[in-house]
Amino acid sequence: MTRYALLLEYDGAAFQGWQRQSNGPSVQQVMEEAAASLNGGENGVAVAAGRTDSGVHAWGQVVTLDVAAALPPERLRMALNFHLKPWPVVARGAALAVAGWSPRFSAVQRAYRYRILNRQTRPALDAGRVWHVPQPLDAGAMAEAAATLLGQHDFTAYRPASCQAASAVRTMEQLRVTRAGDEVVIEAEARSFLHHQIRNLAGTLAEVGRGRRPVGWPRQVLESRDRAQAGQTAPPEGLCFMRVDYPVPIDWR
Amino acid sequence: MTRYALLLEYDGAAFQGWQRQSNGPSVQQVMEEAAASLNGGENGVAVAAGRTDSGVHAWGQVVTLDVAAALPPERLRMALNFHLKPWPVVARGAALAVAGWSPRFSAVQRAYRYRILNRQTRPALDAGRVWHVPQPLDAGAMAEAAATLLGQHDFTAYRPASCQAASAVRTMEQLRVTRAGDEVVIEAEARSFLHHQIRNLAGTLAEVGRGRRPVGWPRQVLESRDRAQAGQTAPPEGLCFMRVDYPVPIDWR
Repeated sequence: MTRYALLLEYDGAAFQGWQRQSNGPSVQQVMEEAAASLNGGENGVAVAAGRTDSGVHAWGQVVTLDVAAALPPERLRMALNFHLKPWPVVARGAALAVAGWSPRFSAVQRAYRYRILNRQTRPALDAGRVWHVPQPLDAGAMAEAAATLLGQHDFTAYRPASCQAASAVRTMEQLRVTRAGDEVVIEAEARSFLHHQIRNLAGTLAEVGRGRRPVGWPRQVLESRDRAQAGQTAPPEGLCFMRVDYPVPIDWR
Repeated sequence: MTRYALLLEYDGAAFQGWQRQSNGPSVQQVMEEAAASLNGGENGVAVAAGRTDSGVHAWGQVVTLDVAAALPPERLRMALNFHLKPWPVVARGAALAVAGWSPRFSAVQRAYRYRILNRQTRPALDAGRVWHVPQPLDAGAMAEAAATLLGQHDFTAYRPASCQAASAVRTMEQLRVTRAGDEVVIEAEARSFLHHQIRNLAGTLAEVGRGRRPVGWPRQVLESRDRAQAGQTAPPEGLCFMRVDYPVPIDWR
């Protein structure tokens, strides 16, 4: 078996998330089945940098996949993409995985983007790619509120009871809110995130944007460490896993 | 009947183009049926600034629609969008149409955008929104070639035999080619365009981008006035009708 690193782009709408589920196709299952086509039927295990939820998109997910054939990365990528063809998932790049390297545990930074379409009318062209918020959002107020969450904190208030992480302490390196026309975009970067953390932050920041809560509220929610305080969990379709950084940059082919 | 102007966004993949066809749903048909729901069953005629082809998208198509109810534009927009709901088409804005104004004949400028995804791997997230060109494109060479087509010319070489326009003389006000990451974007502006003109230009410029033809070739094709000289007609899914300008800007509600 050869272990490859892969840079994946996928449309989350087609999948029950990254992880194998009994109730529908997952990206993991589709990747492992594509590997099986190259392995004479034997499944290779796929491991991801981040286990995206059902409906969440990826532009720069990083995974490993074990494949029997020892091909140059570029040829492996093309062969895999051929077998992935019916699904809206592609390997944008491939590389040989170095021994001891893990897409999940070696990651030093992860970047996500959350897109909000902020206009009265529902989306037509971007349907399934954005959260539609019809009430006018004050992106400036959201940006101010976001800035109060930077740094190392206990994010208990922003994770669900089901979150399995041992500690809720995370370091938010970046949490930017910007507006471009009708779109409000939240960009988040941290070494790692809690389950639903960005969607809970997006839902909470949107409350500030709508003017229902003051700029200081998301920080109060944080300090409460009370899961019942935060705003709604924003829907998955606005979220996209953009990038994973490693100590040594990967030479994608 | 009250005549409204509407600013439409639609996903071209769902339609056989703007104009009513017997072989499938068109944007015109869907608009007229939505109007009929407001008119107690009587169809209102919809007229568009540009008759987009099957598969071509719109972000800023402008149309008129006759509706029996005399509603404030904002309420008309909301009522229409309610009736349009199963379809990937929305009115982003509405206004009362002034007597004598035509979305088609009053237009002084039209803007289209053509998106090319230029990487080896097929699109996942932007499938159906871009033309996938796997060979590396030299966007700088394409931009240089595009600049030679600016101004007033006989564009016979860039229209199909089926084009019904009496004259093939058009004035290209802008034809920009830019690259942003893996995407090469062509932006075209003119008072009006010929049938397939932008898709034929995109296909021809792509030949220069691939290095198969020199920078001077698209201009030679233009001067030949020979329909057989141009490159392929680029596929419809990369094209989006972005904007129509009128002498008096419309106050969209």
